[in-house]
Amino acid sequence: MADGAEFEKIRAIWRALGERGTGGGDDCAIVELGGVMVALSSDMAVEGIHFRPGWLEPRELGWRAGAAALSDLAAVAAEPRGVLVSLAVSPQWPDESVAELMVGVGDVAASVGASVWGGDLVRGDRLVVDVLVAGVVAEPVLRRGARVGDELWVTGRLGGPARAIAVWEAGSEPERTARERFAHPEPRVAAAIWLRDRGATALIDLSDGLVQDAGQLAAASGLCCVIDVDSVPLHCSVADFETALVSGEEFELLVALPAATEPELARRFWDEHALELTRIGDVVSGSGLVLQRQGEPVAPPPGFSHF
Amino acid sequence: MADGAEFEKIRAIWRALGERGTGGGDDCAIVELGGVMVALSSDMAVEGIHFRPGWLEPRELGWRAGAAALSDLAAVAAEPRGVLVSLAVSPQWPDESVAELMVGVGDVAASVGASVWGGDLVRGDRLVVDVLVAGVVAEPVLRRGARVGDELWVTGRLGGPARAIAVWEAGSEPERTARERFAHPEPRVAAAIWLRDRGATALIDLSDGLVQDAGQLAAASGLCCVIDVDSVPLHCSVADFETALVSGEEFELLVALPAATEPELARRFWDEHALELTRIGDVVSGSGLVLQRQGEPVAPPPGFSHF
Repeated sequence: MADGAEFEKIRAIWRALGERGTGGGDDCAIVELGGVMVALSSDMAVEGIHFRPGWLEPRELGWRAGAAALSDLAAVAAEPRGVLVSLAVSPQWPDESVAELMVGVGDVAASVGASVWGGDLVRGDRLVVDVLVAGVVAEPVLRRGARVGDELWVTGRLGGPARAIAVWEAGSEPERTARERFAHPEPRVAAAIWLRDRGATALIDLSDGLVQDAGQLAAASGLCCVIDVDSVPLHCSVADFETALVSGEEFELLVALPAATEPELARRFWDEHALELTRIGDVVSGSGLVLQRQGEPVAPPPGFSHF
Repeated sequence: MADGAEFEKIRAIWRALGERGTGGGDDCAIVELGGVMVALSSDMAVEGIHFRPGWLEPRELGWRAGAAALSDLAAVAAEPRGVLVSLAVSPQWPDESVAELMVGVGDVAASVGASVWGGDLVRGDRLVVDVLVAGVVAEPVLRRGARVGDELWVTGRLGGPARAIAVWEAGSEPERTARERFAHPEPRVAAAIWLRDRGATALIDLSDGLVQDAGQLAAASGLCCVIDVDSVPLHCSVADFETALVSGEEFELLVALPAATEPELARRFWDEHALELTRIGDVVSGSGLVLQRQGEPVAPPPGFSHF
């Protein structure tokens, strides 16, 4: 449901809430709590909708659910501290599987310096995992801060999760590297803070796919993102750019940086994070997203909804 | 699943988490976040398990889900600040119903001084509502603080929610007052803080029913709770004590107070909160829960699991 219809529903909710709501409508709520700036976000996954039984082991399910929520903190350069996990599980699920799932959440939380603080466990007829993450955020980098002349960069290589899902849906088992991108996405917390410290003006995580999320960054900033399709770094399991452009739940970062931020930026980033940082475009005046190839505009992939 | 099996599952989770987890296993996590003591809790409700379609209007569903989570903050005398709501909804649910549900959450949040900060909206085949609440808690009152000689008091009148469910399950429509207790429980935030200020030593909210929750308070405090069955205040729709003893999701408070805390305590409480405060028993040395009637022990209601 990560499409125009979802955004419309969410807008309708904030309208109806009126003064009862104080969120900005971002994935991540940034609020003051007892004088401290805190970032909070929740991410819910439903069996049969976000994953199918048999794709992942319980521990992988937990890692993935935790990573999805923690990525929302990375998306504003917050520092995760803890997570709460609400679980609906079928009575048929063995206790060991429930514990394994929670260990997966605990592992990914620990990988970014956070702990499992608690949660809720209820009965359900299919698995539902909702992970709430909390962190502190001294200097948030929001999606709306991009400026004309900024460069657009992306972390990692894109398309792996979409490739894994496509192979599973076709009834086969994906290649190890694509499966790994789906089962063990890494929240880019350290990368986000590194980029913030180098003057990042806008940041978003790729949860809905590069095309969607670049469109969000452009809309929030009131500017136009131009992406050179041929520069988009493809995951090794992926042969076509369309997959990389629309692949969701990548949990990589799209970042706007002032031009010429630092010589050899990508190499320094690699040295620090063992992760690619690739320049894929520019922020210009105007609105929306423009995809281009050898300087000529190209049509967006099917399913892309405009902002 | 609020029974021994659930508690065993939760214990198994904390064991498996080891150092990855830092929660106490209480309903509410109390953690330090940027130097501030913060209380966080989540409460998940699944259609068909926690409520059935047709019992409540969307706005009532939202109120009730929000109240259940906010009650966890009242249970430690925390001050709510905000909520995040993760929703799985069927594509058949109209956008207006989703917005109405969220307005219900917003209403109950506003009733205790909190705002809706954000959340997640995903597709599902049945409604799942997970509400995360955050508050500040300068001086938490935990379930483990009771001392020998303390008196046990309970807020409100018990049994209404169980009565409403029983009537619905029998195919009728419950009387207005019982329905109201199910649809519009009030998180006892102000009452909890008032009781804290009068020296409450232990506090718990009645989410699993008086017998279960008094057992929890006794176990956490390492003492015995003695409850005089005839003193338990019955909701006007309820004729038998068993219903009042096991009725869950009351969201009233059970509190341990030093003996002779204040003359006319119940009247002063009523003047402040327009709510009854009733003495129902004592904390004594020993362990577990003893129910008695005219000074003689009586058997616990069926379905009660020992601690």
